[in-house]
Amino acid sequence: MMWLEEFTPEWVAELGAHTFTAEEIVAFARDWDPQPFHLDEAAGQASLFGGLAASGWHVACEWMALWIAHQNREMEARAARGEVVPVPGPSPGFDDMRWLKPVLAGQTVVYRATLHSARPSATRPAWGILSTDNLGFVDDELVFRFTARVMWPRRPVAP
Amino acid sequence: MMWLEEFTPEWVAELGAHTFTAEEIVAFARDWDPQPFHLDEAAGQASLFGGLAASGWHVACEWMALWIAHQNREMEARAARGEVVPVPGPSPGFDDMRWLKPVLAGQTVVYRATLHSARPSATRPAWGILSTDNLGFVDDELVFRFTARVMWPRRPVAP
Repeated sequence: MMWLEEFTPEWVAELGAHTFTAEEIVAFARDWDPQPFHLDEAAGQASLFGGLAASGWHVACEWMALWIAHQNREMEARAARGEVVPVPGPSPGFDDMRWLKPVLAGQTVVYRATLHSARPSATRPAWGILSTDNLGFVDDELVFRFTARVMWPRRPVAP
Repeated sequence: MMWLEEFTPEWVAELGAHTFTAEEIVAFARDWDPQPFHLDEAAGQASLFGGLAASGWHVACEWMALWIAHQNREMEARAARGEVVPVPGPSPGFDDMRWLKPVLAGQTVVYRATLHSARPSATRPAWGILSTDNLGFVDDELVFRFTARVMWPRRPVAP
């Protein structure tokens, strides 16, 4: 993971990919979003989705899991080099969440993050706001996107 | 559930309440958002959250579960009256998701939905876009909000 000052406009994070199986789609929907088109292939076929479709929250939660796994790998690499590890803070909010196309059973979403902005906090000297554009692709077609904002640590000033 | 035309500006849906136990917070975080302040009381205390805090996605997913339960109750009531039941469609996206205050272990969030707008689709005659403002309160203080947009069925025209 990086300090706020280290994010450059060309920063890109390839977060990895996830294949949404029918079993996972139904299990997530049972817990959080039990609508027919997320629970049953025939109901999905009959809906505007045109097939058994993952809940939008499921597509978002898989982003979160991959983002954190990415973050943990970066933190471990930094710790292995004996460096101080930046630890991200809370998120004040997310914007412009869009489910542009259904994610159907068996499809694989490739997740990527790019920089939206990185600016110091006006009120907390140790913190800034990191804003990232988060994208999900199926077969190179954008199916999911949102803009995240997270409280992000600034590089400590040497004493 | 209602047809698009039946939503009036004063429409309010009391969706119910959910108490976020430490066990649930940790279980959700393990699956989707394994950050220290969502997994461990001491780490939460040491963070900007000030305690073991629910993942923002957890607060959102509980909204979804309560929204669907509310929707199902309304659909069953309509079916019990022998009426045609409107079945909602997919969501194109959500906006302005804000986690205004942490939701800490043991706290209860009361969820409410109000009308943002209800307008016919420009391209699909049978559908409109229902937009709702969704709010979560702890002890009458707003802690969570976002604006949802969902494809919503219009009242069928009598043949």
